Amino acid sequence: MDVAAVTAIAPDAPLEKTTIRRRDTGPSDVLIEIEFAGICHSDIHHARGEWGRTIYPTTPGHEIVGIVREVGSEVTRHAVGDRVGVGCMVGACHECSSCEAGQEQECERGAVMTYGSPLPEDSVEGTTTQGGYSTHIVVEERMVVSVPEDLDPAAATPLLCAGVTMFSPLRQWNVGPGSKVAVIGMGGLGHVGVQLAVAMGAEVTVLSQTTSKRDDSLRFGAVEHYATAGDEGKQNLRNLTGTFDVILNTVSAPLPLDQFMRTLKPRGAMVEIGIPSEPMSLRAGSVTGGRKILTGSMIGGIPETQEMLDFCAEHGITAEIELIAADKINEAYDRVVRSDVRYRFVIDAKTF
Amino acid sequence: MDVAAVTAIAPDAPLEKTTIRRRDTGPSDVLIEIEFAGICHSDIHHARGEWGRTIYPTTPGHEIVGIVREVGSEVTRHAVGDRVGVGCMVGACHECSSCEAGQEQECERGAVMTYGSPLPEDSVEGTTTQGGYSTHIVVEERMVVSVPEDLDPAAATPLLCAGVTMFSPLRQWNVGPGSKVAVIGMGGLGHVGVQLAVAMGAEVTVLSQTTSKRDDSLRFGAVEHYATAGDEGKQNLRNLTGTFDVILNTVSAPLPLDQFMRTLKPRGAMVEIGIPSEPMSLRAGSVTGGRKILTGSMIGGIPETQEMLDFCAEHGITAEIELIAADKINEAYDRVVRSDVRYRFVIDAKTF
Repeated sequence: MDVAAVTAIAPDAPLEKTTIRRRDTGPSDVLIEIEFAGICHSDIHHARGEWGRTIYPTTPGHEIVGIVREVGSEVTRHAVGDRVGVGCMVGACHECSSCEAGQEQECERGAVMTYGSPLPEDSVEGTTTQGGYSTHIVVEERMVVSVPEDLDPAAATPLLCAGVTMFSPLRQWNVGPGSKVAVIGMGGLGHVGVQLAVAMGAEVTVLSQTTSKRDDSLRFGAVEHYATAGDEGKQNLRNLTGTFDVILNTVSAPLPLDQFMRTLKPRGAMVEIGIPSEPMSLRAGSVTGGRKILTGSMIGGIPETQEMLDFCAEHGITAEIELIAADKINEAYDRVVRSDVRYRFVIDAKTF
Repeated sequence: MDVAAVTAIAPDAPLEKTTIRRRDTGPSDVLIEIEFAGICHSDIHHARGEWGRTIYPTTPGHEIVGIVREVGSEVTRHAVGDRVGVGCMVGACHECSSCEAGQEQECERGAVMTYGSPLPEDSVEGTTTQGGYSTHIVVEERMVVSVPEDLDPAAATPLLCAGVTMFSPLRQWNVGPGSKVAVIGMGGLGHVGVQLAVAMGAEVTVLSQTTSKRDDSLRFGAVEHYATAGDEGKQNLRNLTGTFDVILNTVSAPLPLDQFMRTLKPRGAMVEIGIPSEPMSLRAGSVTGGRKILTGSMIGGIPETQEMLDFCAEHGITAEIELIAADKINEAYDRVVRSDVRYRFVIDAKTF
């Protein structure tokens, strides 16, 4: 089946409308009519070839919400008419220890990403997987999650990537009542992370370059929002020495890590979520004194994606979004790059 | 009481024999007649002023084994005639949460280190604590551990620092049967760490610049010893991708960390024990992919020092030492600096 899509054809060309081919719905597959597709900064890096491994043409989009229109003969988890979601992955081996632990993102044979992953040679869908900037997608049912009725579907769309990316490390590092959590960066990831950590019972502080988003931080439930740039920022960080159990760093620009590590309690953990392209610099003393932890996290597994959506429904958490038509994608990309969005773009799939 | 000691009087002068003053045995103190004092590389950095904060004259030594000769009226843990040990700390607040957790090295008011820590103004012992290169020392009983009878006292001496420094992170990261552990560096720390991890049931690999100590590694129970220098080392590390649960890095020279992080399993932990003076360089991808952990550890608490000594007695673990007289300390320092010792110098305190 050929479906409408918006596709990148070259690193420096605007994305354009086209059609792409989806496979027939196999025995374990569901066909989803896409309602909404989120724009993630990763889409832009990929579409513009900034990670050096993009095969064109490529359809980005790994935050997908839609309605099941067809199910394969062996499908048990989803039914026609269900509202469902697809995140960053559309396949995994389902047999290795990571998959068995529900951490398909660490599949030992390599998870199949929603866009840009190689397809088998005989695939009718082309050479690489094609993502969610389109009207329909066919996905194996095990990689598809249920979107709870209580969630606004457009505003829930970014949760499929941004939500689980923040939820997974919060769970892994046992954030709960009594925890003191800092979120570095108030963007698409950060504004969801603040809400999640607050709902888990943590006392949350936002650390951002400036105080321009301070009102939003407090509205999302943070107890404080400190600027981190310049001399004032340095002093703010010094005043926070030994404060946090967990820090989620969503910023992909290089930071003076040692200054931030100092704000951790003994045995506290700094979780890298943004990935700077340059190596980071860190003094060994920042981890030896107090046995502090520098670690990282990338998205999350399918079971925790479902758990996250259920948690968000229970606590009324969604992303703050700007809903756009497909012909505004290129403009939206430029605005994401200059951080001119509060906080996430979502594309109305009816406009593809 | 004035006691014989060997003291550093200036950064660039050889250590020399002198006398230092020890306080009277207070109600909670024990007076220890020192039998053996170990030489730790930290002693050398301190004596030579390489950490930039040495107050001279200073008596190094934080690996101490001796016999209790006098106890204060309130002492209950130790009795006259007992063989005891003192490690890197001689005081702590005993009230903060770290102390209550038995982690006096992270005392919130700052642990009192065995040498070089400021003393109260009215102390008869001078301006800073004076360490174990002497015939006697007075220490509060809570900072003194029991040396099991089964341990050779001279060979057990380095355990007071090197032993607990390796034992603490192995315990913290749950090393046991089934664990795959790597030890980077086969020196004073490394050769004890290999024995401890093997005794805990782990499969241990040594990663060392060259294979010159391979026979020793295998004798201590390691299953393999790989060279890490040059192109061959790079290839060795590549072959070990995804192998280890825990890596203990005892090397204080800067290493290509990303290459070593790659040898960790998902969620594996690299523990920095050596502290390079320059900042380390690390790609964020080395911790985000597989949620790997970079952390550190410094010595350990008093309860785990005792646990470590009991564990070593049970498993027949000591350091391999070269026993020297006090007049060989300066020569020994030079040999430690050029790694010309297998594996630790211990000074016979009768020769002070």
